[in-house]
Amino acid sequence: MTDPASVAFRSTCPLASVLDIIGDKWTLVIMRDMLAGKTRFSEFLDSPEGLSPRVLSQRLSFLESQGMIQKVQAGRTHPAYVLTDKAMELKEVGIRLAEWGLRHIPGRVSPYLDKFRDED
Amino acid sequence: MTDPASVAFRSTCPLASVLDIIGDKWTLVIMRDMLAGKTRFSEFLDSPEGLSPRVLSQRLSFLESQGMIQKVQAGRTHPAYVLTDKAMELKEVGIRLAEWGLRHIPGRVSPYLDKFRDED
Repeated sequence: MTDPASVAFRSTCPLASVLDIIGDKWTLVIMRDMLAGKTRFSEFLDSPEGLSPRVLSQRLSFLESQGMIQKVQAGRTHPAYVLTDKAMELKEVGIRLAEWGLRHIPGRVSPYLDKFRDED
Repeated sequence: MTDPASVAFRSTCPLASVLDIIGDKWTLVIMRDMLAGKTRFSEFLDSPEGLSPRVLSQRLSFLESQGMIQKVQAGRTHPAYVLTDKAMELKEVGIRLAEWGLRHIPGRVSPYLDKFRDED
């Protein structure tokens, strides 16, 4: 379960509460990168959106506290991060959001989307 | 189409670009309220999440600029706001997010969700 103690939920509405966890411009972008196979802090920073180290660090800690990602040391100096099963349940939502973007926002390009769809 | 001129998209990724439009804690809450039949500024302020008039005003103007909502005067002093067809295409995403919240966040309650599902 998500740890409700660490989130100030605005209401008992399930939609609003989900947005209290993932309702920002960065969280689903980081989860997209994990879905695409990225696992390292430096890899997330490389994405074209220009996420700052400070925001990335905050979001990773928070997502870990909420059981959305797991830190995997795997014998290396820098940890790797992977999505949990709970977070993976949001994959279909991400695909649908991306499909909406392709339909309605000119000039969008998605090298990953076909791959993500095929995995279902 | 969405008006790309008024949004500083971070990349050409369709998911990141959708989040440049709706990626915050409030937008989908306002759209939820419209889906539930609310149309007036004062009705949106009444929701339990405690949205401020300043943020509401900003989000309504932005959503109108993006073709997500339409202002309907209907002969009244205060305008009514309704979702466009394009915005309605995100309804299923909202339902799935809420369902995820019901599964994973303790204590969530949704008086609307069954009604929204039934309309599909």
